[in-house]
Amino acid sequence: MVTIALIVGASQGIGLEFARQFLDTQRVNRVYATYRNADCDLFNFEHPDLVRLSLDLTDEAQIEQAIAQIKAETSELHYVINCVGVLHDGTMQPEKSLRHLNADQLLKYFQINSIGAALLAKHVQPLLKHRDRAILATISAKVGSIGDNQVGGWYGYRASKAALNMFMRTTAIEFKRTCPNAIVVTLHPGTTDTRLSKPFQRSVPPEKLFSVDRTVQQLITVLDQLQDSNSGEFFSWDGTKLAW
Amino acid sequence: MVTIALIVGASQGIGLEFARQFLDTQRVNRVYATYRNADCDLFNFEHPDLVRLSLDLTDEAQIEQAIAQIKAETSELHYVINCVGVLHDGTMQPEKSLRHLNADQLLKYFQINSIGAALLAKHVQPLLKHRDRAILATISAKVGSIGDNQVGGWYGYRASKAALNMFMRTTAIEFKRTCPNAIVVTLHPGTTDTRLSKPFQRSVPPEKLFSVDRTVQQLITVLDQLQDSNSGEFFSWDGTKLAW
Repeated sequence: MVTIALIVGASQGIGLEFARQFLDTQRVNRVYATYRNADCDLFNFEHPDLVRLSLDLTDEAQIEQAIAQIKAETSELHYVINCVGVLHDGTMQPEKSLRHLNADQLLKYFQINSIGAALLAKHVQPLLKHRDRAILATISAKVGSIGDNQVGGWYGYRASKAALNMFMRTTAIEFKRTCPNAIVVTLHPGTTDTRLSKPFQRSVPPEKLFSVDRTVQQLITVLDQLQDSNSGEFFSWDGTKLAW
Repeated sequence: MVTIALIVGASQGIGLEFARQFLDTQRVNRVYATYRNADCDLFNFEHPDLVRLSLDLTDEAQIEQAIAQIKAETSELHYVINCVGVLHDGTMQPEKSLRHLNADQLLKYFQINSIGAALLAKHVQPLLKHRDRAILATISAKVGSIGDNQVGGWYGYRASKAALNMFMRTTAIEFKRTCPNAIVVTLHPGTTDTRLSKPFQRSVPPEKLFSVDRTVQQLITVLDQLQDSNSGEFFSWDGTKLAW
């Protein structure tokens, strides 16, 4: 059997490491890896079974185009790993309190962290209808757990991850009818030493700050232990289920 | 003590009925009631203690302006009831399945159902810092419960209500420091005979379709029973706590 993965948001960090480990361990025979800007670490990783695709997940036309390119070569995907997400960038910072909220930044959080994942599920669905097991896993975050929220702040990031969790649970319900062998989950990777966590690492004890390599190994272990009945659930890096 | 309420989204339906019951029962001495379009039922309700304010909750400048108008007359609000929300309108319909998803409609759901509520919390905060009890209650929906989602569909509405629930829980945490006498909750009104539920009433058994009058009476009973420790929680019309 030929096993094929699509890693969305593989420019660097967790997404790129998924591509690397999937290929280096020969878990999959081919990886489609997407990037938004060609000036990224993905272009420093060379592998004969790696196919790079340009994709901005906030643009549905680009999703259609990338999926069309994959469909020209295969009708089946076995892993779809969505690692796209934003916490901060040159223009946005997570809001410490209500007075930092503004509509444009909040919209951007939803656009990138929530809506992109839902549009991806829409377009990837035909490639997950096959008879073999498939996994659609999206990187979420424990701070997106409403019930677990004890310290507040980070309004837009939290709400966009809660929305992501809802989109993926709703997708899991639809897939039970349309793609019965596909398991849909959201994952909390733990705090990982990437650009996303960089400004916030000072408050993280060293043993709780994972290397990218370790995080991806742990998440792959979680994926390997999934049962059909886990579709629609939200898992932490250690395999425990997280509260919504 | 003079008791003052702000009802946001009082053009018709549940919001208008809150204004009416608050004034008719003399629970409050003044109601600020907001509308988006002056061609609405709010203008058929006359009461000497009713103040109508124009407010589109998707425009932060309009929120600032409406709050400034209230601040010119009072420094304290005791009830802020946010009834703004969209499920369908002339151009949007809840998505039955992934193939109906489109980015613009999803953004609109978040803009109206989630972000508006967060911006309102930002601007209303100074009026809730007083020594008397205050309640900030937002109409959410049980279909916005991620854990309770069993049937799927309605992607944008569900995700926007989950995001709303996260915004309000995060607000509740901030208010514990900044407005310690304010209780922040989200409410599931039950299916109520309003324009929002009209296209979907056929599948609702008659005893589960509430009149607007009954829904608001029930929600006021829930508000009356709130304890400080309930801030940040999500309640159904019968006073039971809902899962996130």
